[in-house]
Amino acid sequence: MWQETVNQITSKNEQAEKEMGQYLNTLTKPLGSLGRLEKLAVQLAGIQSDIDVSSPAVLVFAGDHKVTDEGVSLYGSEVTQLMVHNFVKEGAAINVLARQIGASVTVVDVGVDSEALEGAVARKIKRGSGNIAIESAMTLAAAEEAIATGIEMAQEAVSKGAKIIIPGEMGIGNTTPSSALLAKWTGELPEAVTGSGTGVEGEQLLLKAEVIRKAVNRSEAVSPLEVLADIGGLEIAALTGAMLGAAEKKTPVLIDGFIATVAALGAVKLAPAAGDYFIFGHRSAEAGHEIALRALKADPLLDLQMRLGEGTGAAAAYPLVAMAAGIVKEMATFADLGMDV
Amino acid sequence: MWQETVNQITSKNEQAEKEMGQYLNTLTKPLGSLGRLEKLAVQLAGIQSDIDVSSPAVLVFAGDHKVTDEGVSLYGSEVTQLMVHNFVKEGAAINVLARQIGASVTVVDVGVDSEALEGAVARKIKRGSGNIAIESAMTLAAAEEAIATGIEMAQEAVSKGAKIIIPGEMGIGNTTPSSALLAKWTGELPEAVTGSGTGVEGEQLLLKAEVIRKAVNRSEAVSPLEVLADIGGLEIAALTGAMLGAAEKKTPVLIDGFIATVAALGAVKLAPAAGDYFIFGHRSAEAGHEIALRALKADPLLDLQMRLGEGTGAAAAYPLVAMAAGIVKEMATFADLGMDV
Repeated sequence: MWQETVNQITSKNEQAEKEMGQYLNTLTKPLGSLGRLEKLAVQLAGIQSDIDVSSPAVLVFAGDHKVTDEGVSLYGSEVTQLMVHNFVKEGAAINVLARQIGASVTVVDVGVDSEALEGAVARKIKRGSGNIAIESAMTLAAAEEAIATGIEMAQEAVSKGAKIIIPGEMGIGNTTPSSALLAKWTGELPEAVTGSGTGVEGEQLLLKAEVIRKAVNRSEAVSPLEVLADIGGLEIAALTGAMLGAAEKKTPVLIDGFIATVAALGAVKLAPAAGDYFIFGHRSAEAGHEIALRALKADPLLDLQMRLGEGTGAAAAYPLVAMAAGIVKEMATFADLGMDV
Repeated sequence: MWQETVNQITSKNEQAEKEMGQYLNTLTKPLGSLGRLEKLAVQLAGIQSDIDVSSPAVLVFAGDHKVTDEGVSLYGSEVTQLMVHNFVKEGAAINVLARQIGASVTVVDVGVDSEALEGAVARKIKRGSGNIAIESAMTLAAAEEAIATGIEMAQEAVSKGAKIIIPGEMGIGNTTPSSALLAKWTGELPEAVTGSGTGVEGEQLLLKAEVIRKAVNRSEAVSPLEVLADIGGLEIAALTGAMLGAAEKKTPVLIDGFIATVAALGAVKLAPAAGDYFIFGHRSAEAGHEIALRALKADPLLDLQMRLGEGTGAAAAYPLVAMAAGIVKEMATFADLGMDV
């Protein structure tokens, strides 16, 4: 069960972090001159006893959202399955970036509003999360199943040799439940956490904020699980699960943009120590992301005005994590050069 | 001669940039959602008729600076040759990062204060640039030779198949001439362009600013070449040459931090169109970098508080450039998916 995973998650090794900080000062460079690459190396040391971020695994969780009936997205729900097809055919942005970084891509259907999708891992819990403006996204049991699916997928990737997990998502309409979750968890106003998603603006953006307000006001959920079930989404809960599953296995998780960061917030609410395993990849152009990052005290590696999801922002940041690991494993020390600095 | 190279440098292809912008809008993603990766793709289209940034070549130019006699650096001049040895043995930060990105590393000795250095390309023009506080860094002829060497090295790399050039440098004391050049070229006060380099602070930092002031006040140089020769440095002039050489061959140049950016400013002063070929890799923590970037209207891809040089910040940014190229070459269009968006 997912609660067992939560119970197994332990904090980072602070002693190992401290020792890494000292080791970095022996390398052939001015003190601290590799900046955030050094901070990354320290974080990795706190996570892994042997630093290794090879064989990254991208897990793309896909699901639909009946809240699109309210007109919150520029695209129709049918685009979700077309994009799943695109992932399977390796033509989407995440496929291109994954190839660049040598990552596997696994697409997991947890809630697409379709028949079974060829090439995707079939874990459909139901066809689409409910219209959160008027009803719960899913039952508590469905949320638990989505989380368990995420855990399973991440841990399967780890058992196959992945040393870092990159959770991504696809779901037309999923910035709307993400914004609702964020408003609920931070107390921010719906209009503050509402962004343009795939590109809505003007009247439609106001409507989207109104839909998010309705969902937040409707919900009487209290616990993190209840909130995820009531105003979240199936693939968001699965993302949360994947993050927890990786954390249990002491495997770093590279966090993508707005939706993934909200899922990370959910993961930290369920298991505070999970946050030790999160490396934030990029600062999204989506309006609410800043608020989600602030709630997690997170400062992402990249700021490239990306707002695509799928795990693309995290994949773009992966090479920096690999470089940090390389610095630790491969750089010469001043002593190697026969220098006493 | 280097002037011929300067004369051959042509501006980017603006029509190709425009067409690339339109093509990117047909790819399977919300409009503009890949942010700066899309801007990079547009820039590459303006540079290359066939977008390809494979086989990156790192060129590390090394030289010493007799201005270290003034006490401007934390390390002694002898560290330059030790670091050249480290590059050759592949133990430095740039070697680690180059391996991660599949780049070759060529070390070129243009002015190390030593005998010939094993494993480095031997192009020593003289043993160390002059103490710019009291004398010219080099003669005009030496500056021309350094620029020509940079051109030659970049063009040799291109002829061997490099589709992008990453110029780096090593030279204890070289933030001092870089700051002097920047003050001269921008009119900024010496104290505004003076940073801690390898880590100087307090009294020593004030002394360093004073040394830079002396150099700037001493110099009566006017033309960009005269300024480079009078208050610059051998490896800085070589960097400028490498940038010009790549631009002539319509090859993108990934610009590193403070010293490389000052060299880029020199390149643009010699050949304004060269700037079209420059992709700025990272924002250095070195104080003067912001001023140099502003002078070039440049907004780097990364901001990781790095301040090491060697080309490390540019190498760290390379995967983003490769991803931008991959997006163009490999992503599916909406038409491929049978969608009419």
